[in-house]
Amino acid sequence: MVWPRSEFLGSLLAEEGAEALLVMAGSSRDPDLLPFVGGARLGDACVAANGGGAFLAYFTSMEREEAARAEAEGIELVHPADFDMESLRKEGKSHDEILAAAVKAAFARAGVVPGRVAVAGRPTAGAALAMAATLEEGGWKPVSGRRVMLALRRTKTGSEIEGIAAAARATVEAFESVARMLADCSIRTGEELWFAEERLTVARVKGLAAQVFAGHGLEQPEGSIVAPAEEGATGHSTGTPERVLRAGESVVVDLFPRGLLFADCTRTFCVGEPPENLLRAHGLVLEALKTSLEAVRPGVRGWTLHERVCRLVENAGFESPDRNPGAQRGYFHLLGHGVGYELHELPSFRESGPGTEELRAGDVVTIEPGLYDPEAGWGVRLEDLAVVTENGMKNLTPLPYALDPAAW
Amino acid sequence: MVWPRSEFLGSLLAEEGAEALLVMAGSSRDPDLLPFVGGARLGDACVAANGGGAFLAYFTSMEREEAARAEAEGIELVHPADFDMESLRKEGKSHDEILAAAVKAAFARAGVVPGRVAVAGRPTAGAALAMAATLEEGGWKPVSGRRVMLALRRTKTGSEIEGIAAAARATVEAFESVARMLADCSIRTGEELWFAEERLTVARVKGLAAQVFAGHGLEQPEGSIVAPAEEGATGHSTGTPERVLRAGESVVVDLFPRGLLFADCTRTFCVGEPPENLLRAHGLVLEALKTSLEAVRPGVRGWTLHERVCRLVENAGFESPDRNPGAQRGYFHLLGHGVGYELHELPSFRESGPGTEELRAGDVVTIEPGLYDPEAGWGVRLEDLAVVTENGMKNLTPLPYALDPAAW
Repeated sequence: MVWPRSEFLGSLLAEEGAEALLVMAGSSRDPDLLPFVGGARLGDACVAANGGGAFLAYFTSMEREEAARAEAEGIELVHPADFDMESLRKEGKSHDEILAAAVKAAFARAGVVPGRVAVAGRPTAGAALAMAATLEEGGWKPVSGRRVMLALRRTKTGSEIEGIAAAARATVEAFESVARMLADCSIRTGEELWFAEERLTVARVKGLAAQVFAGHGLEQPEGSIVAPAEEGATGHSTGTPERVLRAGESVVVDLFPRGLLFADCTRTFCVGEPPENLLRAHGLVLEALKTSLEAVRPGVRGWTLHERVCRLVENAGFESPDRNPGAQRGYFHLLGHGVGYELHELPSFRESGPGTEELRAGDVVTIEPGLYDPEAGWGVRLEDLAVVTENGMKNLTPLPYALDPAAW
Repeated sequence: MVWPRSEFLGSLLAEEGAEALLVMAGSSRDPDLLPFVGGARLGDACVAANGGGAFLAYFTSMEREEAARAEAEGIELVHPADFDMESLRKEGKSHDEILAAAVKAAFARAGVVPGRVAVAGRPTAGAALAMAATLEEGGWKPVSGRRVMLALRRTKTGSEIEGIAAAARATVEAFESVARMLADCSIRTGEELWFAEERLTVARVKGLAAQVFAGHGLEQPEGSIVAPAEEGATGHSTGTPERVLRAGESVVVDLFPRGLLFADCTRTFCVGEPPENLLRAHGLVLEALKTSLEAVRPGVRGWTLHERVCRLVENAGFESPDRNPGAQRGYFHLLGHGVGYELHELPSFRESGPGTEELRAGDVVTIEPGLYDPEAGWGVRLEDLAVVTENGMKNLTPLPYALDPAAW
């Protein structure tokens, strides 16, 4: 069995005029390595791949079973014994020299002829230098593999989409738990929310979500956002742990857990009576989200959707980021982003640059309009995660949108 | 205010014959960037530093406030305007060209004369190539900064030790919660543990720990280990989420949360009556831990402590990793490792290689002896985190060691 994506990778390499892709990584959680090794837990590893197949070199026989998991997906293995790992170590060769031997062995197996080699992964800067020197000595010219890698990662396989969908299902469960917790709160002195005889803090809400994710074997390597009132109004606070939530204020909850791949979803809640301006903003953001989701299909550019939301909020009297880039009030970020092995990847919703062309079936994107008012002290953001299909999109985070958790 | 560690960095660079350190990173969570930027949340960033100071270049004016947090620690800022970021972007310059401009601006401010430059961080391989080309064009020779960086990170500042201690305090709280949950379980049919009218699974224990950590604003970017019986006996399983815990079996709980820095601690539990061999192994591992902790002080090598534990377990009839490296039964890993911005860093407990010299005051290390028997289906590991002091060590994870959670 040849790695099933070899043909696609071969075409991406041909566009780049490169003979092969070389991914070097210090961890199997490197987003450039994950498309090759999937769930295999490895330390250092490197992959050489071209139109003919993909070859994974690993560095300790203790990882043999883990590496075999990649083998089951069509990746061919370069075992430590194949480049005399033990002898090199005994001879006192440096880490960089051992890596070089592994790369040479993988290149020999892949039959990489002299020419350009697209390099990817996030090795340490020192290891990247050593790798470049190794390639040059062997007659190869290292060039950036960023474009090839991002294009490969943008186009998701069925199991990658299922990985995102699984993280999204857990996210849905986490939001349902959070809504239930908020709905079960009592309101006491100073409008404070109390849950199970304690003041409800940002930390407690984050803790509940963390508990749900841990139960699904998911991690939150980039944390989470539970940002009440003034903290949700700035767009960059993740929420102060000891801050007590209060009735009548907005609370932006943005969760982005990761299995092998990320999910990403945001809801905004308000327990008790929302102020008029918050209610109006929520209605507008919801309209922006729904019309944008309806417009998601192959052939539409993310930037086009973003511009429409800019006009929508402008017509309602709010500032928009395309005409007023420095705005701190109104709408001030992009409408969405691709999601995959990184939380933010292609396609891009920017006006220009890599991945800003039309959406394609198989893209996984979030749509996340928001409105913020730091002076009035509220923020509203609603975000759904969707996979682009032949005819439109499938929403991976089907949840209520209501501000009021009791309406969930 | 000059960055207080400049003099130390200057001496490390002098040993390496380098004029400056250049850290390039795609995220402010890069462990090589964190010693400079601390809690500041940035996207791309680079730091140029030498004996005269440290200069942080950031890339968007939106991050001004975040960058100012590094400034408060003595880091000097290279603002986007200082290298005409906006003009470069408008002219359609590539990401790599913009990075190159930032590096040149930072080098000018730091007064870096032509010569060797130690490079660190984990940029993408493509960005590392571009950076190397920029340096060479400017008359600098890029060399690996790994040694300099690991030596700098090994020597912790007071606030770094406090960061580890804070994560360790949350870890202590998480273990106390886990012990309470286990102690409160009832034992039902098939020796299954039940908690609050549900079977107690690995997922539920992990969820409880995740909840505690989230409440302290900590993340678990590398997950956690809750490994019962046969899963804890192999040394590399992290625990199957749906696995129900049972009375009379071992469960290895290894937690390693991160704020800016990691903590790391392991305990092994057994609810109900432990089998004789488990009880004996636990006693031996505890003896190994205690005698090792007592021996931790400046001037002692980690390898020496490791060898003593090898002899201790051998004398008790178990296999040891220094004489039988491939063993799957008995003791089969190193005794400890340094902890900091990465979960595993210097000092090293290996026989030879970087960071294997004597322990020094200010080192933060774990001591984690373990015994495992895959055939009998049990594992025991006990791990404490300690900071080396002038006279010995301070244990950062003061917790009971008992197998029986009811004895906690």
